[in-house]
Formats: sequence, structure tokens, C-alpha cells
Amino acid sequence: MSPRRLKSSTGQVNGIAPTLMLEKSSGIPLHKQIYSGFRAAILRGELVPGQQVPSSRALTVELGVSRFPILEAYAQLHAEGYFETQAGLGTFISRLLPVSNASSSPRIACIVGSRLASKQSERLPAFEETPWRYGQGAFALHQPALDQFPFRTWSQLVALHSRRPRADAFHHVDPLGLGRFRTAICSYLRTSRAVRCEPDQIMIVSGSQQALALTSRVLFDPEDPVLVEDPGYPLMRSVLLGAGCRLVPVPVDENGMNVSAAIELCEKARAAFVTPSHQFPMGSTLSASRRLQLIEWAERSGSWIVEDDYDSEFRYESKPISSLQGLDISERVIYIGTFSKVLFASLRLGYIVIPKDLVERFIRVRLAMDIFPPYLYQEVLADFMERGSFIRHLRGMRALYQKRRATLVDSLEKRFGDDLAIHGAAAGLHLCVTLPKGFHDLEVAAKAAEQHLWIWPLSSCYLECAPQQGMLLGYGNTPVEQVAKGVKQLQSVLSRCHA
Amino acid sequence: MSPRRLKSSTGQVNGIAPTLMLEKSSGIPLHKQIYSGFRAAILRGELVPGQQVPSSRALTVELGVSRFPILEAYAQLHAEGYFETQAGLGTFISRLLPVSNASSSPRIACIVGSRLASKQSERLPAFEETPWRYGQGAFALHQPALDQFPFRTWSQLVALHSRRPRADAFHHVDPLGLGRFRTAICSYLRTSRAVRCEPDQIMIVSGSQQALALTSRVLFDPEDPVLVEDPGYPLMRSVLLGAGCRLVPVPVDENGMNVSAAIELCEKARAAFVTPSHQFPMGSTLSASRRLQLIEWAERSGSWIVEDDYDSEFRYESKPISSLQGLDISERVIYIGTFSKVLFASLRLGYIVIPKDLVERFIRVRLAMDIFPPYLYQEVLADFMERGSFIRHLRGMRALYQKRRATLVDSLEKRFGDDLAIHGAAAGLHLCVTLPKGFHDLEVAAKAAEQHLWIWPLSSCYLECAPQQGMLLGYGNTPVEQVAKGVKQLQSVLSRCHA
Repeated sequence: MSPRRLKSSTGQVNGIAPTLMLEKSSGIPLHKQIYSGFRAAILRGELVPGQQVPSSRALTVELGVSRFPILEAYAQLHAEGYFETQAGLGTFISRLLPVSNASSSPRIACIVGSRLASKQSERLPAFEETPWRYGQGAFALHQPALDQFPFRTWSQLVALHSRRPRADAFHHVDPLGLGRFRTAICSYLRTSRAVRCEPDQIMIVSGSQQALALTSRVLFDPEDPVLVEDPGYPLMRSVLLGAGCRLVPVPVDENGMNVSAAIELCEKARAAFVTPSHQFPMGSTLSASRRLQLIEWAERSGSWIVEDDYDSEFRYESKPISSLQGLDISERVIYIGTFSKVLFASLRLGYIVIPKDLVERFIRVRLAMDIFPPYLYQEVLADFMERGSFIRHLRGMRALYQKRRATLVDSLEKRFGDDLAIHGAAAGLHLCVTLPKGFHDLEVAAKAAEQHLWIWPLSSCYLECAPQQGMLLGYGNTPVEQVAKGVKQLQSVLSRCHA
Repeated sequence: MSPRRLKSSTGQVNGIAPTLMLEKSSGIPLHKQIYSGFRAAILRGELVPGQQVPSSRALTVELGVSRFPILEAYAQLHAEGYFETQAGLGTFISRLLPVSNASSSPRIACIVGSRLASKQSERLPAFEETPWRYGQGAFALHQPALDQFPFRTWSQLVALHSRRPRADAFHHVDPLGLGRFRTAICSYLRTSRAVRCEPDQIMIVSGSQQALALTSRVLFDPEDPVLVEDPGYPLMRSVLLGAGCRLVPVPVDENGMNVSAAIELCEKARAAFVTPSHQFPMGSTLSASRRLQLIEWAERSGSWIVEDDYDSEFRYESKPISSLQGLDISERVIYIGTFSKVLFASLRLGYIVIPKDLVERFIRVRLAMDIFPPYLYQEVLADFMERGSFIRHLRGMRALYQKRRATLVDSLEKRFGDDLAIHGAAAGLHLCVTLPKGFHDLEVAAKAAEQHLWIWPLSSCYLECAPQQGMLLGYGNTPVEQVAKGVKQLQSVLSRCHA
């Protein structure tokens, strides 16, 4: 339907109105319907710049509605610049609107799959909805025992800080995070992880991923070479790929990253990213000699070490291994930790221990990235730590996971004997099982997912062509009574998979 | 003190132990003191690779403590690779430890101010603790009326979702954010901001800063030219500087960014960043004709428009202006909104409405940046919106801010008459006052801060040399009864400042 000319009561042409289909029972206020009708007609080019629109009185008669909604719609159209008033003459479609845009030819939205985006986003792996990433239950990776979390204590603290937050919690927009929370973390790290730190070199972040992203922005520019463990953590590599770094993959053995090989491969690397407590995914521990060798290299070549201590709290055959950071007296280590594996992942809280002379750089980058962290969980977790609930929970979980791990190792050995090799069971929340030749772990993972077993394929952790196929089995959120059943199902999956 | 040789009961030398100063009353467990003593001695080079250490029995005698803590410490030193056992011979400092590192020369931590960090972090403005950024109270920018926030309703919802979170809230690690929250935002944006969107093109972020950072990573590579308003929002510029973009400053007038000037300055710009509802900092509204002109340019040149709608909810002289995004049928607009200005800043929640064909790219970058947002406040705010509390709060605040704004404008006019020009008071949570020649706004802001008046200097918002000096006065968190007093104090500050 096209716009119609309205005549005044004296028969004079009195502006052009679009066809307005007003629906009184639609729930949308009349003024809004009128406003939208005019706006749409202008955008479609049915009303063009310079055209007169009916006076509000004329439109009242035409539409048979009260004048108020019309006046309100007109005021809005004026405010937004669609209408203009010419004194003594009336109201017109603004002549400042570009004519070409208001042409009557319909424009087709040019949604094609390949509009110009950045090269840096092109370098990142495409997003895939892989089932093992998002599944919940048996063997899922990086999931703590949610059913054992002390929600009662926790929610009391949450309620306390939510009812009437401290004014300074609201206003303390510190890019490092809440002071008392940093103090609590500092004292925990000194005691439990032998980290050398002060609260003012700790930055609260939304998890270890943000820590890695921040660190890479502070340290690297495109083309910088960086040493990474291979196999390693895929999302860590994404950070470096996004930053345009040149990744130098370093082999891993039962003593963690092969540091001699790393130095030989690229002595001038800007940094080395390591998971010394429990190498991801193989689970080995970086030996003391390699730790010292790595620190010596960093000092000599002016490089950095990024220590991702993602699940160091859980170690079953000795005390937790002290951090690499604590060995380093030349402040070459950036230490990253997270609460996701100890409490729960959707908490989104982690921390970075930053060498003192880099703190200001981290703040600059943080301000540009997301300014400062949300306050509530910082307050809650500070209390949780100060009251000892954190350490108690940790202790309880260590015992629980030890049991789950032992059950899983037993079940695997009973069912598979020497057919499967188990790696990295001394610590953490997962172990790695390598498959005999002829198996494809992606196929195994896909078939397992059909049985609601969430298994990460080892090959997805390799930067280069995977020399072995395997499965990462998480046991943090897999209760003892599910383990044997899960392993049995897994056996049946494998029997349908081998080459 | 140097290490001592221990003799066995038969007088044989039985390994070397460091000087261990055990303090039984220190609260530090004995095994930990023993472990640390050995480790420190190895790191200091006092014990060198290949040296024998005393048997646990010998050390028990030497130290006069029970054997358990010694065994525990030794086990730990073994686990970490500092000790090695030679069958039949005893325990030794591991020969795998690098000798050079264990030299006895003390190493001095080389903390100098200029160790190698990235060029991209160098480009960002240095962090300054400017008082007006962090102050709380009269005239502080971007602060809503915290005392009016419905903490009761809010904390009931928080408690509800915290006591026993839904399992799928825990496990729904969707990089876009919680589905029901995105649905609530979608319906709000369609109704209130005329944004064209579906829930699956909305991404939850930790505030508009993260939205800007994500957007720039998806769209730009180093050297890409980008149009920005000048004056504009400093932290938006930081994002682009960090990404290595070439900033093209575009002048702003009473109709917002001068779009014709922008196109003339750099027609091939990859994007334009605009604040169309309430230009930051000047407060003008981008006119309808310029909106259409900008969209037409973006479509023609294959460029993007980033619409930061940071405080669009508050408009006092007409209804809120519809979004630029809603006018754009070619999906060239990335729309950014935040809850910081409507609820409170330390909530850290905002959203991006992403053109559909870019959603996957945003997810890639988001996974590398921080994976997914924390769940709790998403649940809470979804309820808050579904129950109508959000709209009610918004309506109440609009009336309140209107009063605060009117009082501030009145007070300024009474005290200063025509000496000060007021800009951008039609909307938002702040207005801009330009100062007569001879004033320096940084000086004014610093002197005002001494009186606990938190004023952003206008000049800090200019990319190029500021052509005018001025003050940004926030009234969101400045109650009516404080306004007159604040303006009086401001007058006295100005009287001590002019040239």
C-alpha cells in the first residue's frame, strides 16, 4: 500500500502520511505504532526529504484516534531528526536526510559468509561444538566434584555480600582486583605453592584463559617466537596464534618439557609456556633439573617463563610440588593460577603473579581489555579463604580425588591390562591413556560421546602431526560408583573402533 | 654458616647437611623447615650435584627430632628431583641439576625498569592513579544512584541462584553466555532500543570495555585505519591503540560525529566507532541524516560501524532515541550495550549484538580471550528482567536522574550565568561544561579533587591537542541535596584557578 494524501477539512492537501495499520489490541502503544509507521516509510523511501506530513489535527481525524499519541510520535520523530518544522508552513520530512538512501528500490542485505574480518581472527581455530568439550559427567575434563561443593557456606557468604555490599567494594575499581582478596591469595600461594609474592603483584582475572591472554598482550608482538609444550593445551596455543606469535613446539617426556631440546630449537625465544606441576595433557612433572635449566636459560637470554599451574593443588603421591616461580630469583616467571579446578568453573576467577617491574604494563593492558574484575565473588572467596573453608575444601577434595583416581586406574588395569598405557596419574584431575596402533582417538571420542562418556582425544592437543593417539580421562566429577561402569562402556566403545 | 659434615656413630663421614635452623615454636611444620633448608642450600650452591646427604637416621641424631619429618622432607626432595638414590650407597644431590646454576656466587635479581615487553603494550597510555577516575561521590562520572538500587529484590535472587545452582548453569559453558539471559536482553533491545536481533547473535561480555576489545580483535589488524570521535572515550582509544590501528580523529558537533568530514578524512577506513545516543563526552545526539549517511558509507565501502550505546536508557526531553543498528538493514553495525550505567559498575555485565555472519568469529576470539562469562549474575539478571524489575528500576531512575540533572543545570546557570556553556544535558548521566579561555581543566580537576569533587577534565578526551577546556560533571550518583553545595565549591575552586 502506498502513502495517501490527506486533505484538510477545507479540502486542501495537508501532507502525506504513510499507510498506518494501527492495532489497538496489539499491546503496542499507539504512539509507538505511529512513530514506527512513519520511520519505516521514510527508510523505505516512501516518504522523501522535503515532503510535508499531515498536521497532528488532520491525522487525528484520519486515524480516528486521540491526538496525544500522535503528538508523542511526532515529538519523537522531531527529536530524532526525521521531521523538521518550517515556521508557519507545517511539518516536513527533514531535508537533511540523504536522498539516495531514501530511494524506493528495496535494498537487499548483503549477508555473505566472507565479509572482511581480521587476519588475527582468521588464524584462530574455527569454533566447533565438540561434544567432549561441553558434556557433563563421566570422564569430562577439568570438572571438579560439584556435588561436594559446600554450597551452604558459600551461599551464606554470597547472600551476606549481596544484601548490602560494602561501598568500597563498589567503588574500588582497582584493575588488580580487591585488595583483601589479593592478600588472601598471596598468603595461600606463599604457604602452599612456595610462590614468592606480595599482594600488589597479584592481579585477579576471570580465569587462567584471561591470564594467558593478558600475558601474551603484555609480552609479545607479532612474529615473536614462543616455546610451547607439544602436546599442550589447545586454548593456550589459540592465545599465541591470535597474538601472531611464531609457535615453537617442544617435545614432552616423563619429566615434562624437554628443556635442552627447547633451547636448541630456539634459544632466542621470547618466552616458554609450561605446565610444570602436571603437564597438560600428559600429566608428567617438570623435574627439578629442568626447572633450574629453564630459569637459567630465561635469565641468560632475557626471556620469560609463563608457568600455568592449573591443577597443582592435587598431588597424590607426594606433597604438591613447589612452584617454578619460587625457584626463580631473577623474576623471569609469570605465574598463573585458577580457582576453576578447585571450586567450580563458572566462577571465572583466577590470578596472575606478576614480576614487579611488569605490574604497570599488565594494568595498562587490563584497562583496555576489561578494566577490572566483578566484585561479588572476590569478596566471597576472600572470606572463604580467611575462614579456612578453602583449605578444608581442598583437603577434602584431595582425598576424594585420590580415591576416584585409584578406582579409575584399577578399573583400567583390570579391563585392559597392558593394552593401554596410563600416564600422569600422580597429580591433577585427569590422566592420559595412550591407545595401541590402529585406533583413531577422534573416532573413539565421538563414539564415546554417544554413550555420554566425555573423552578428550589426545591428538587434538598436538600442534604438529600427533605421534600417538590417546584419551584424556577426567575423574574430578566422576564418582567412584560411575567409574567401573564407565570403563566397561569404554571397553565396548573401543571394541567397535579398532582398525 | 656453611654446611657441616655429619659423622655416623662409627665415625664415618655420612653425607653433608645444610645448617638447619629448626624452630619448633614457629608454627611451620618441621618437615617443611627441613625441606626448605635443603632446597635453599642447593639453590645457593652450598650443596652441589653428586654430593651425598646424610641418611635420615643420621640426621635424626644430629637434629634431635623424630624421624618422621625427616622422611617426609626427603620424600618431597626426591619427588621434586633434588635428591637421587644410588642403590646400596645412599642419597645424593641429584646429578641432573645444572652445576652452573648451583654455583656459590650470589645472583642479584636484575630488576630494572625496562625489561623486554611488547610494543603493543608500549603503545597504551601509562597507568595513572588520577583521582577523578576513582573517586566516589559528587560529580563522579559513570556512576548510577547506588543508594536507589533495589538490593533487597536483587539479593533474594542472588541467594536463590547461589544456594543450589541449576546444573546446566554450571555446565553451560557457552561462549555466548546463558541462553535465557540472552533471550531476555533480546526482547528488551527489540522493544526499547529498536535493535534488530535474535538471541543467538547476542554475546554476554564483562562490560562494554570487553565488548570493544573483542570487536577490535575480530575486525582489525595492525595499521588498519579506524574513524573515532574526537573528543571521545579514552579507553575506547586504548583498545584500538593496543590493536595497532591507525586512529583517524573526526570532529564532533551538536549533531554528533561529523560524518561528511569522516568520509572525507578516510573513506577507506575499516570502521567508525560512534556513541550516537549521547556522544561521549560532549553529549550530543547523532542526527538521523548522519545516521543514514554513516550506514550508507559503511555499506558502500565495506566498512563496519561500532555503536557504543553506553547510557542510552536515560533521555529526558524525548523518548530514548532508537539505535543506529535498527536502521541498518545491511548488518554493518556491531551494537554494544552495558548494564554498568543502569545497575552498578562492579556487576561487570554487558553485551554485543553481532551481525550473524560474524558470530563464529566473535566466538573464536572470545574462547581465546576468556572462554565464557561467569554464570551467577547472568541468572540473576535474567530473572530481574523477566519479572519486570529491570524496567521498573529503569523508569524510576530516569525520573530521579531527570531531577538531578535539572537541579545541576539550574545551579550552574545561577552561579555562572553565561560564563560556562552547558552541553549534552538532554540525555545520559553526565553533562559537559566548557570553560572560558585561560582555564586549564587538568588544574581545575586536580584542585576539585582536593574538595572531593570528582571532575573529568575534557581535554583528556581529545586525541589531538584539545581546542577547548572543560569539565565532565556526572550527576547519576550525586543526590539533589549535594548538587547546590557541589556547584558552590566548584565556583570557589574555579576562582582559585583562572589564568
